[in-house]
Amino acid sequence: MTKRIAVIGAGPSGLAQLRAFQSAAANGADIPEIVCFEKQSNWGGLWNYTWRTGLDQYGEPVHGSMYRYLWSNGPKEGLEFADYSFEEHFGKQIASYPPRAVLFDYIEGRVNKAGVRDWIQFETAVRWVEKEDGKFNVTVTNLPEDHTYTEVFDHVIVCNGHFSTPNVPQFDGFEIFKGRVLHAHDFRDAMEFKDKDVLIIGTSYSAEDIGSQCWKYGAKSITVSHRTAAMGFDWPDNWAEVPLLTHVDGNTAHFKDGTSRDVDAVILCTGYKHHFPFLPDDLRLKTANRLATTDLYKGVAYVNDPDLFYIGMQDQWFTFNMFDAQAWWARDVIMGRITLPDKAAMQADIDDRIAREEAGADDYDAIWYQGDYIKELVAETDYPTFDLEGACQAFKAWKANKKAGIMTFRDHGHKSVLTGTMAPKHHTPWARALDDSLDVYLQN
Amino acid sequence: MTKRIAVIGAGPSGLAQLRAFQSAAANGADIPEIVCFEKQSNWGGLWNYTWRTGLDQYGEPVHGSMYRYLWSNGPKEGLEFADYSFEEHFGKQIASYPPRAVLFDYIEGRVNKAGVRDWIQFETAVRWVEKEDGKFNVTVTNLPEDHTYTEVFDHVIVCNGHFSTPNVPQFDGFEIFKGRVLHAHDFRDAMEFKDKDVLIIGTSYSAEDIGSQCWKYGAKSITVSHRTAAMGFDWPDNWAEVPLLTHVDGNTAHFKDGTSRDVDAVILCTGYKHHFPFLPDDLRLKTANRLATTDLYKGVAYVNDPDLFYIGMQDQWFTFNMFDAQAWWARDVIMGRITLPDKAAMQADIDDRIAREEAGADDYDAIWYQGDYIKELVAETDYPTFDLEGACQAFKAWKANKKAGIMTFRDHGHKSVLTGTMAPKHHTPWARALDDSLDVYLQN
Repeated sequence: MTKRIAVIGAGPSGLAQLRAFQSAAANGADIPEIVCFEKQSNWGGLWNYTWRTGLDQYGEPVHGSMYRYLWSNGPKEGLEFADYSFEEHFGKQIASYPPRAVLFDYIEGRVNKAGVRDWIQFETAVRWVEKEDGKFNVTVTNLPEDHTYTEVFDHVIVCNGHFSTPNVPQFDGFEIFKGRVLHAHDFRDAMEFKDKDVLIIGTSYSAEDIGSQCWKYGAKSITVSHRTAAMGFDWPDNWAEVPLLTHVDGNTAHFKDGTSRDVDAVILCTGYKHHFPFLPDDLRLKTANRLATTDLYKGVAYVNDPDLFYIGMQDQWFTFNMFDAQAWWARDVIMGRITLPDKAAMQADIDDRIAREEAGADDYDAIWYQGDYIKELVAETDYPTFDLEGACQAFKAWKANKKAGIMTFRDHGHKSVLTGTMAPKHHTPWARALDDSLDVYLQN
Repeated sequence: MTKRIAVIGAGPSGLAQLRAFQSAAANGADIPEIVCFEKQSNWGGLWNYTWRTGLDQYGEPVHGSMYRYLWSNGPKEGLEFADYSFEEHFGKQIASYPPRAVLFDYIEGRVNKAGVRDWIQFETAVRWVEKEDGKFNVTVTNLPEDHTYTEVFDHVIVCNGHFSTPNVPQFDGFEIFKGRVLHAHDFRDAMEFKDKDVLIIGTSYSAEDIGSQCWKYGAKSITVSHRTAAMGFDWPDNWAEVPLLTHVDGNTAHFKDGTSRDVDAVILCTGYKHHFPFLPDDLRLKTANRLATTDLYKGVAYVNDPDLFYIGMQDQWFTFNMFDAQAWWARDVIMGRITLPDKAAMQADIDDRIAREEAGADDYDAIWYQGDYIKELVAETDYPTFDLEGACQAFKAWKANKKAGIMTFRDHGHKSVLTGTMAPKHHTPWARALDDSLDVYLQN
C-alpha cells in the first residue's frame, strides 16, 4: 500500500518538501501520497504577508512575523534554490537584497512550476498528533468549515517554522506603560512609528532590521537596549545603544546604567520559540535556536521516533537551500533510498554535531559549519550540487559590508553560485528606496 | 469510585463552578474530585489584567481582552453574587460602577473565602479532549514545565468564556494602512491614542466603551463606523458616527456615504467568537452570541452529550450571578440531584427557549428574558434566591441613564438586590476620575 505522508506547513520548508517528492516523481519514481496541512489561505509561510496580528480570522495564532518594507537582510546568493535560479524565474539577474514581494514571487515560481499546489489543504490547522500502532493520527480542523477530523499517516514532517511564536519577556512597569508594547512578531508598518521615540529591546536581526526600518521611515529616535553587548554598527545620529532596560514608568524607560529616556513605544526584538502545541511529549522537539539542534539525526530525523522529521529547525545562515537539502534527504529516507542507523549511532551523530558547533569561535566558523552541513546532505541525495564555498564567501562579504555601513550594505551586489552572474547594482540605494513593490524593484 | 470532573478555565464561570461544588461540600455532601485547568498564572479570567497582547510568554493566545481604566459598564447591582454581597466583601456598600481592580478583588474574595485555589492547575492549557468508552480523555500542557499529559474524567465543564477570541474582519486597504489596525481584544491603554484621530468599527459595548475611554484620556477625535445603525447617544463634540467603512488608503478612511477622514488608528470593535480549538466536532458547541444558545439544555447541558456542560456561553445582560445559577445547576445534575430528560425533551427545551427569545421585541424584553432564565435555574438548586426583578429594574434605570448622558451614567447609584442598601454616590464623576485604582475608588 502507498505510504501516506503528512507535511505540516506550506512555507519555505514545507514547499521544499513538496518539491523534493515532486522531483522524484518527475524522475520516474513512485512516490507516497503527500498531504500538506497549511493554516493560512496561501503558501509561502512567513513570506505570505498579512496585516493581521495576534489571532487571525479563525481565532488561530497569526503565523506571520513579516512586516511591510522588509528587504532580505542577507544576500539572495546565499539562499538561491539550486534547482531554480533567480535568472530562471525573473528572466534576468536581479539585485542582491530583494524585498519581500520579490522573494515571495521567486518562492512561488518554483512550486507553481512543480505543480504541487493540489497537495496542500489550505486553511487547515493541525490540532493534535499521536502515534498509535506505528502510525500517526493527525487531527486537523478545516477552519472555514469549522470541521475537525483525523487522518492516519506513516510519516509526519514538521515544517511549521520557528519564527512565528514570539519569546516575550516581561519588564517591570509594562503593566502601566502609557504607550504600545509589542513584540517584533506584531510589528507591521514602520510608518506607525514616524516621528516617534522608539525603544527596541534586543540585538539580533529583528532589532537591527526593525530599528533600521523605523529610521528609514522617519522615526524621531531609535534606542536599542542590550543585555550583553551593543551591536556596535556605525548607526545614524538619532540612534543610541544603551544597557538593559530595568523598568518603565509612565513613558520613561530606565536602564541598567542609571540613565533614562522617554519613549513612545517599546518593541521587543527578543526572539522566537520553537513551538509545537500539536505534539505530545514523546514526539515534540525541544531545542534551542542553534546550528546543531538537539535530538535530530542529520538535523532532520527525530532520534526518538525516526518516522518523524523536522525541517528547518536550525538557527539559520542558510535558509531555502538548506531546507531543500533537508527535504531531499528526508524524502530519501522515507522512500528507502537512505537507511537510518540504529539509535545509538544517530545519537552519536547528534552529539558530534553539537561538539563541532561548540568548537566554533565566531560567526565565520558558524557559516562554514552550516555550509559543510548542507554539503554533507546534498552529497547523499540527487539535489543539485552548488558552490557552497561561494555562498559562504557571499555571507563573508555581506558581514564586511554591514560593518562598513549598516544602512548601505544592501547597495552591494554578489555573484550567483549557480550561474556565476554578478547581481546588478540596484537603481536606488536602500535607504532612499521607499517603494518596495516588485515592479519597482525589478526596474533595473 | 469518586467521579472526576474537569473544569476548563478559572474565570468567573469556572470559579462559580468551583464555588458551587465547595458549597455542597460545606453543607455536608460528598462531592466529586474537581480539577480546574487554567491557562493563566492567576484566576479571574478576563478580570486578570495583562499588558500582553497576541501570544503570551508560553506562545499561547492571550486570554485577556481587559484594558486599563475599565470600569464596569453596567451596574454592579445586576451582577452581585447572591451568596457574597459587596458589603460582605468590602465591609461597606460601594458605588455602582467599579473599576476592574475593584471587581477583581470582589471576585477573588469569594473564592478565597471558599478555599478552592488548590483545585486549580494554573499555567496549564487544555490541548485536546476526546470521549472514549464513556469517559473524557483531557490532554493538557503544563506550560512552565513544557509537559503534556492526559487525564480521564467523567464530566467536562467548559468555562473558557467567549470574549477572548476576536472576530476580525478584513477591510480593503488594511494591508497598506499606515497606522495601527487592532481589534478591541488587543486594546490596552487609551493613553496610546492621546491626541490621535481614532476610527472605531462597530457599535456594541466594546465600541461604546473603548471610544469613551479614548475620549476620556485625550484622543483628538473619535469616529465610529456602523454597519446598520448609529449608537445614537449624545456624544461629545469631537465624536462622530459615520456609515460603514468601505476601504482605507494611506491614512484615509472612506465610508459608504462617500465621505472620508484621516485617522491614525483603526480599532475593530467587531465582537468575539465562541472558540473551542480543543474540542472535536462531536463535543464542540457551535452557537451565535445569543440569549438562547443552540444545543444547550437549560442553557448548560450539551444536548448531544449531556456529560458535557458549558457555563456562561450566552449573550449577557446578567453575568456573575447567571454563571452561579448555571454552575449550581450543572453541579446538581452531576451529583444526581437533578435528572436530565431524554434527548427529545432536551431539544424541545432548547427550541422553546429560542422561540421565546425571538419573540422578544427589544432590550427590555431581553433583560427580563434572562432574568426569568436565572430565576428558573435558581429555583431548581439551593443557590440563594435574590430579587431578580430588582436587578432587571437596575438594568432598566441604567439604560435610561445612558440615554440621558453616555459620559455620566456611571455617576448614578443603584440599590443592592441582596441587602437593599443604596450605593453611595462616587466621590468623583467618571469622566474626571483618571485614577482607577482600588484604593482611590474605595475612598467614599
